[in-house]
Amino acid sequence: MSTLKKPVDQFMQAAIDEALKGRAEGGVPIGSVLVHDGKIIGRGHNRRVQQGSAILHGEMDALENAGRQPASVYAQTTLYTTLSPCPMCSGAILLYGIKQVIVGEHRTFMGEEDLLQKRGVKVQVLDNHECITMMSEFIQAHPTLWNEDIGV
Amino acid sequence: MSTLKKPVDQFMQAAIDEALKGRAEGGVPIGSVLVHDGKIIGRGHNRRVQQGSAILHGEMDALENAGRQPASVYAQTTLYTTLSPCPMCSGAILLYGIKQVIVGEHRTFMGEEDLLQKRGVKVQVLDNHECITMMSEFIQAHPTLWNEDIGV
Repeated sequence: MSTLKKPVDQFMQAAIDEALKGRAEGGVPIGSVLVHDGKIIGRGHNRRVQQGSAILHGEMDALENAGRQPASVYAQTTLYTTLSPCPMCSGAILLYGIKQVIVGEHRTFMGEEDLLQKRGVKVQVLDNHECITMMSEFIQAHPTLWNEDIGV
Repeated sequence: MSTLKKPVDQFMQAAIDEALKGRAEGGVPIGSVLVHDGKIIGRGHNRRVQQGSAILHGEMDALENAGRQPASVYAQTTLYTTLSPCPMCSGAILLYGIKQVIVGEHRTFMGEEDLLQKRGVKVQVLDNHECITMMSEFIQAHPTLWNEDIGV
């Protein structure tokens, strides 16, 4: 696959590293980083399993770890996330006026990309092989956990 | 005003009590409760100030405090919140398939009620006097804090 050969952007790699951390902890392997002015200001991964959290998806964890930022900062951030952002995380992107989202893949789960684009957010999907493999393997190994909270 | 005379539902009162707790802590006075089968399974309030949190809005705090629930539970919950839910919290409502949202007021801030209704969520706005007063007083006293994260 050509996706195997593409060099991975440093920020998507950081998001993948977060997802791998989550996987090593026994969690859902989804990671994200929030980038401002060429630097990561927040990074995180899904903590549903680890903390019994209903809200700490990768994107939310990255936003939370970025701390309390002013609107002027959010407006100049790009969010990198290994998986297409769900309605909650897409809502957070809209709330904070994040202008650009780089998505690892949307084959295993399609989030609210249409809504984001309709509201003016630039969404780029990388179809990254490692992101697809991580999620496919996880869903196959843990279907009940994957379907637990929002159903099939 | 007729809103003064209406008896307040016990669950909206619990959401208001959460908002008042937040206000007493020096925080943004917005509170929420998640109700399942006639019982509160999660309650919370905005913790932006108290914890420097970008994601713990009242609704999110209530969802988090409800813990890890199955889709079958979320599908039968009603969310009570003192203020019209922002894009992030509305996204969380959509993610978890919450069918009904009771909103204290939407005069001081209009959230994503249209999107929720378009997606089949029943939204009821109470135009509650105490909710309006709490937020109006807060915004007047702390305009910079109120506009900090998402701008005017």
